Amino acid sequence: MVDAPRPEWLAVDWGTSRLRVWAMAGDHVLEARASDQGMGGLGRDGFEPALLALTEGWLPATGQIPVIACGMVGARTGWAEADYRAIPCTPLDPAAAARPAVRDPRLSVLILPGLSQAEPPDVMRGEETQIAGFLARHPDHDGTLCLPGTHSKWVRLAGGKVTSFRTFMTGELYALLSRQSVLRLSIGEAEPDAAAFATAAAHPGAMVEHLFPLRAASLLNGATPEVTAGRLSGLLIGAEVAAARDFWHDRRVTLIGAPGISALYAQALATHRAAATQMDGAELVLDGLRAARRALSTDATGKDAMR
Amino acid sequence: MVDAPRPEWLAVDWGTSRLRVWAMAGDHVLEARASDQGMGGLGRDGFEPALLALTEGWLPATGQIPVIACGMVGARTGWAEADYRAIPCTPLDPAAAARPAVRDPRLSVLILPGLSQAEPPDVMRGEETQIAGFLARHPDHDGTLCLPGTHSKWVRLAGGKVTSFRTFMTGELYALLSRQSVLRLSIGEAEPDAAAFATAAAHPGAMVEHLFPLRAASLLNGATPEVTAGRLSGLLIGAEVAAARDFWHDRRVTLIGAPGISALYAQALATHRAAATQMDGAELVLDGLRAARRALSTDATGKDAMR
Repeated sequence: MVDAPRPEWLAVDWGTSRLRVWAMAGDHVLEARASDQGMGGLGRDGFEPALLALTEGWLPATGQIPVIACGMVGARTGWAEADYRAIPCTPLDPAAAARPAVRDPRLSVLILPGLSQAEPPDVMRGEETQIAGFLARHPDHDGTLCLPGTHSKWVRLAGGKVTSFRTFMTGELYALLSRQSVLRLSIGEAEPDAAAFATAAAHPGAMVEHLFPLRAASLLNGATPEVTAGRLSGLLIGAEVAAARDFWHDRRVTLIGAPGISALYAQALATHRAAATQMDGAELVLDGLRAARRALSTDATGKDAMR
Repeated sequence: MVDAPRPEWLAVDWGTSRLRVWAMAGDHVLEARASDQGMGGLGRDGFEPALLALTEGWLPATGQIPVIACGMVGARTGWAEADYRAIPCTPLDPAAAARPAVRDPRLSVLILPGLSQAEPPDVMRGEETQIAGFLARHPDHDGTLCLPGTHSKWVRLAGGKVTSFRTFMTGELYALLSRQSVLRLSIGEAEPDAAAFATAAAHPGAMVEHLFPLRAASLLNGATPEVTAGRLSGLLIGAEVAAARDFWHDRRVTLIGAPGISALYAQALATHRAAATQMDGAELVLDGLRAARRALSTDATGKDAMR
């Protein structure tokens, strides 16, 4: 009988709707788990039990294990508020992490802070750790990152720091409009048609004036659900890309996200003759948590004990 | 004992969420009733029972009573589809009305058709009857009408005809964003602040880039729910008014709607130095149904029997 390997630390990505945990030995993943115990559904007293439940068997019998977490778990309504750090700054500063009170003495939990921007007002929680993961791989990168999603982020990097960023609610708008507005009657469960997306993305114009015509075109001209979905997606992503011009007009964009959504953004950027590189960001958050762990080890020992 | 007055005809405004009926003698209202039996909640077989229930006591013991209806009741998924009439045309043509099959022989139901526009694609059902009511009072009016609401309409009138129109989903967008998006966390049940509305309405810019900063400003700067609500309302109405420029830049606008919402549109128009007259539209739909009844009587008898 072989003893189960004991993790040295736990990496935690705790968003609004998902909780992901990794049992780590140095930079090596021993095991990964996930649940739908996102912060959105938890009261303040619910976080520790949710973490203990998902990490069952990973905690030592005695002594403490470091837990490094990022994401909405650090919001005001999360486990413990981790104050935003104001840009310009590096994406990561584990010394500024929040330490929630815990009952189980084996847990030593750090929650990494998000970033804030004064003008225009903006915030992020979780993406800063993905950005840190990106910089860990590309430390000298100067350029723009775009992270599409429910709330997509455009981020300018220079000299290892975030110098400006902007959030668009494009994914949330698409979900609300396609599932809950009158447009749901013309879209249903359809996936966006590619050609319809391309045409709409190239001419988003004043987006608000093109929304109801989507419904009318399905009533009058028989536009299919797929075409209507493609047009809506194109209008919204096209409007976002046009409004984010400051972030791409003079620099190359790296798109970090699932291949499908990144390809749509690349297509919308191409209509402006803007170039973009696509990168699957699935593991970047873990790379960022690894970087935080290394920074903490260096701080604690005077040398980088984890390398 | 006095006999209850017997109506000569019934006027019906049947929208997605509401059913309103009037017992009429000529142009005179004998009684008005309303229910929440809108077309949105009714299957095809549900319309006649809903109408009979709400008009109980109004129908004659023998013989037929004309019923003139407008609104979403004439949609494809309504009681009987009343095909759209293509503009340019007068708002009203009772001869083009649909006649749903009925079981009760006392009912003679006409459903007035809506209007359609080929480019950009657009449709209306119900508003054309309000417009007819407006023209009944102002037959020589040339100008633009704006009917704010869930789906607001801008309508150009010339020579008694609708020459173009455009629908904006502004009211629906406000409801979705303020109640269901992440912005709900910053707005709650708050009513829009007037000063915040005015500032945002004057500078809607690319509306999509200003949405998430509303959330961030409440997190970072303590913007109140009222201020956030006012900014969101101002952004959306400001974006609509800016996009509707073709409808107001060279002509006076008549705003037809409840006083509160009309005042917000007037304020947004004023930032462009565009003038607007406000008019409470509550009774216009009944005026339009009266005009339809007069037109039918004229058709039927060769003279205007109702005047």
